[in-house]
Amino acid sequence: MTSLSIVAPQSMYFAEALALQSGASLSGYTLVYETYGTLNADASNAVLVCHALNASHHVAGAYVNEATGAKTMGWWDNMVGPGKPLDTNKFFVIGVNNPGSCFGSTGPMHINPASGKPYGADFPLLTVEDWVQAQARLADALGIHRFAAVMGGSLGGMQALAWSMMYPQRLAHCVVIASTPKLSAQNIAFNDVARQAILTDPDFHGGDFYAHGVVPKNGLRVARMVGHITYLSDDDMAEKFGRDLRGDGYQFGYGVDFEIESYLRYQGDKFSEYFDANTYLLITKALDYFDPARAFGGDLTKAFANIKAKFLIASFTTDWRFSPARSREIVQALVNNRQKVTYAEIDAPHGHDAFLLEDARYMNVVRAYYENVWDDVSAEVQS
Amino acid sequence: MTSLSIVAPQSMYFAEALALQSGASLSGYTLVYETYGTLNADASNAVLVCHALNASHHVAGAYVNEATGAKTMGWWDNMVGPGKPLDTNKFFVIGVNNPGSCFGSTGPMHINPASGKPYGADFPLLTVEDWVQAQARLADALGIHRFAAVMGGSLGGMQALAWSMMYPQRLAHCVVIASTPKLSAQNIAFNDVARQAILTDPDFHGGDFYAHGVVPKNGLRVARMVGHITYLSDDDMAEKFGRDLRGDGYQFGYGVDFEIESYLRYQGDKFSEYFDANTYLLITKALDYFDPARAFGGDLTKAFANIKAKFLIASFTTDWRFSPARSREIVQALVNNRQKVTYAEIDAPHGHDAFLLEDARYMNVVRAYYENVWDDVSAEVQS
Repeated sequence: MTSLSIVAPQSMYFAEALALQSGASLSGYTLVYETYGTLNADASNAVLVCHALNASHHVAGAYVNEATGAKTMGWWDNMVGPGKPLDTNKFFVIGVNNPGSCFGSTGPMHINPASGKPYGADFPLLTVEDWVQAQARLADALGIHRFAAVMGGSLGGMQALAWSMMYPQRLAHCVVIASTPKLSAQNIAFNDVARQAILTDPDFHGGDFYAHGVVPKNGLRVARMVGHITYLSDDDMAEKFGRDLRGDGYQFGYGVDFEIESYLRYQGDKFSEYFDANTYLLITKALDYFDPARAFGGDLTKAFANIKAKFLIASFTTDWRFSPARSREIVQALVNNRQKVTYAEIDAPHGHDAFLLEDARYMNVVRAYYENVWDDVSAEVQS
Repeated sequence: MTSLSIVAPQSMYFAEALALQSGASLSGYTLVYETYGTLNADASNAVLVCHALNASHHVAGAYVNEATGAKTMGWWDNMVGPGKPLDTNKFFVIGVNNPGSCFGSTGPMHINPASGKPYGADFPLLTVEDWVQAQARLADALGIHRFAAVMGGSLGGMQALAWSMMYPQRLAHCVVIASTPKLSAQNIAFNDVARQAILTDPDFHGGDFYAHGVVPKNGLRVARMVGHITYLSDDDMAEKFGRDLRGDGYQFGYGVDFEIESYLRYQGDKFSEYFDANTYLLITKALDYFDPARAFGGDLTKAFANIKAKFLIASFTTDWRFSPARSREIVQALVNNRQKVTYAEIDAPHGHDAFLLEDARYMNVVRAYYENVWDDVSAEVQS
C-alpha cells in the first residue's frame, strides 16, 4: 500500500444561496474539495468522506511545501488510498470542507458580501443537515447522483447518517464510525465549557476579532485542551503519560510538572495557532444540535423509517465520548426497521481518537465492508 | 436528628513558621476552625474532618445572617451533628480551614508580612502533607494527642490517609471516602485545563490581581465548569438534564440552548464570585502532587507499612473522577499489610458528588462504623 502522491484541492463557487435550518441563508459561497481516484462512466463508484471538527477536505495523499519539501498528509490517509481499506484504485473518493469551517470553504473569516467585512459574528450557524445539503449540491455539480457510500467518523458519521435520512435514494451504503445519534448532557457540557472559554476571551471581541488584528488564542487553547481530554481514554493516557514528570521532582510552581501537562498544552498551543474561534463555536453547536429523532418525538426508529442504505457501524470500546452504547442505539433502530446493518465493536485502547488511528482489526472490517460495496458497484455496472 | 444550631468559627495564630515540603516556609499564620460537641476529659473522643477543594472549616451547623436571617449550613451537615452518622452528642468534631484556602485561614489574599502586600503569587505551594502538619499543630494546641478518627472525602480523604502515615500513633481510625492514593493522568489533565484557564485570564496578572482591583472571573468560571463536569456522573447528568431545552427550540446563537448549559454556567458564575484564583491553583496542585507511594518506588503497600489506624474506605460506583478501582488500591495495600480495613462500594448514581449527598446506605455504613469507633473510645476510657 502506498499513499496517494501529491494531491491538490479544487474549489467550486455556488451562486444560489443555501437556505439553512436556522431560517437564515448563506449567500454565494465556495466549497473547497479534493478527489482521489477516477469516477467511472456511470458515476457509480463515488464515495463521499465527511470530516469531523478539526479536519478538512484534505482526506488523503500529501500536500508538499515547495520550499521545504515537507509533506502534510491527509487526515485519513491510513484509510483512503491505493490498496487501502477505501481503495482509490476502485473508488472515486471526495473530501469536502464544510461551509463554516476554516480550511478554505466559505467561513466566518471570509468577507461577507453584504457588509464588505469579515463575517465574524454575522456568519450563520449551520447544522449537520445544512452541511449535507451543501455536499449534495457539490455532488450534483460533479454529476454524482448516487454515492456508492457516504462515510464519516464522529461528527463526520453524523453527516453520513443525515445523508441516509435526507437523501435515501442517493447512497447505497452508509459508514458511520465512532458516532452517536445525539449528544448526551455530558457531551454538551464539555462543548459549552470550550465555547465559554472562547466567548469570554477578551480577544474574541464578540466574534469580530479579525478587525482587531487579534485571535482569542487563550480561549481556543483551553477549548482544545478540554476537548482533547475527551478524545483519549483514561487508560491510554495512563499508559502513555501516567504521572511521568518532565523534570526532576516537583517544581512547586505553575509551569510544567507532568508530561501530560506538557502534551496537552502543546496540543492547545498548536491548535490555537491555526484554528478559527468562530468555526470552533459553530461546529460544536452543530454537534449539540444534531438529533434526528427530535422531530419524531425522540423515536430513532421512526426517524430512520425511510432509510434505504445498507450500514456499517463501528465503535471502539474505550471511547467514552461516543461510547459503543451510542452506536448500538443506531444499530438497534436500524434493526427495528429491518434495515441492513453490520456492526463492529472494536476493542481498542485509544478512546475516541481510535477512529483515526491504525488498528488491524478496524482496518480489516472497513476493508471487508468496502469489498461488499465494490461488489454492489460491479453488479450495478453489469445490470 | 437535628442540625447543630448556630455555630461560629474560632481562629488561632501560629507564630512558628511552618516548614513546607517545597523547601519554602509559611511564617506566622492563622488557622480558622470550628468545633462541635464536647471534648471528653481524656481528649479521646475527637474527630478531625478534613475538607476538599471547595469547602472549609464550616462542616456542620448554621451560620445565620443577622440582617436577613438566612442560614448557611455546613458542607457536611447531613453527616455531622447530633444523632447523625458522626454524632456530635458523642464525639468532639473539628473542622479546620487549610492554609492557602480562601475561607479565613492564611491564604494568598492575605498580607505577606515580608512585603506588606497581599501574598498573591508569593504564597508558597502547600501539599496535603503540609496541611496535615498544620492540622497536627492545631490538635496539639487543643490538647488532642490522638484522634478517635480522622475523616475526609476526596482531597479530604487524602489528608486522612496522610495522617495515618505521618502520625500513625495519633489516630485510632481513618475514614477515607471517594478518594484515591494518587491522581491519574486524566485527573491531572482536567486540573491543568482549569489552571490554564485561570493563568491565561488577563485579569489574573500573574497572581497579583488583588493590587489591580480585579478578579480573573472568566478563568475561574471555566475552571469550575470543567471541574463540575467531573464531579457528576454521565448518567446522573442525563437523568437531571438530558437534552432538555431552556426555551422553545434551538436558539441558533451562543446563549443558553440546553438546561445543562444554564446549570453549568450558573455554577461557574457563582463560584467565580467567591473563590480565590490563587487558592484554586494551589489546591489543584496539592491534589496533583499527592502520591505517598512515590517515595517507595510506587509501592503503596510499603508506603503503608507503619500505619496503625483501622480504616473505613468508601467509594461510589458512578464516580469516574476517583472511581471505586482507586479506592480498592488503598484497600489492597492495607490488606497486603494485614491492616484492618472495612470497605464499602456504594451503588449511587451521583458520581463523585455522592460523598456529599444523602444516601441511606452510605450514611448507614458511616454510622455503623462510628459506632465501632465509639466502642473503642469507651473501651479506652474504661481501661
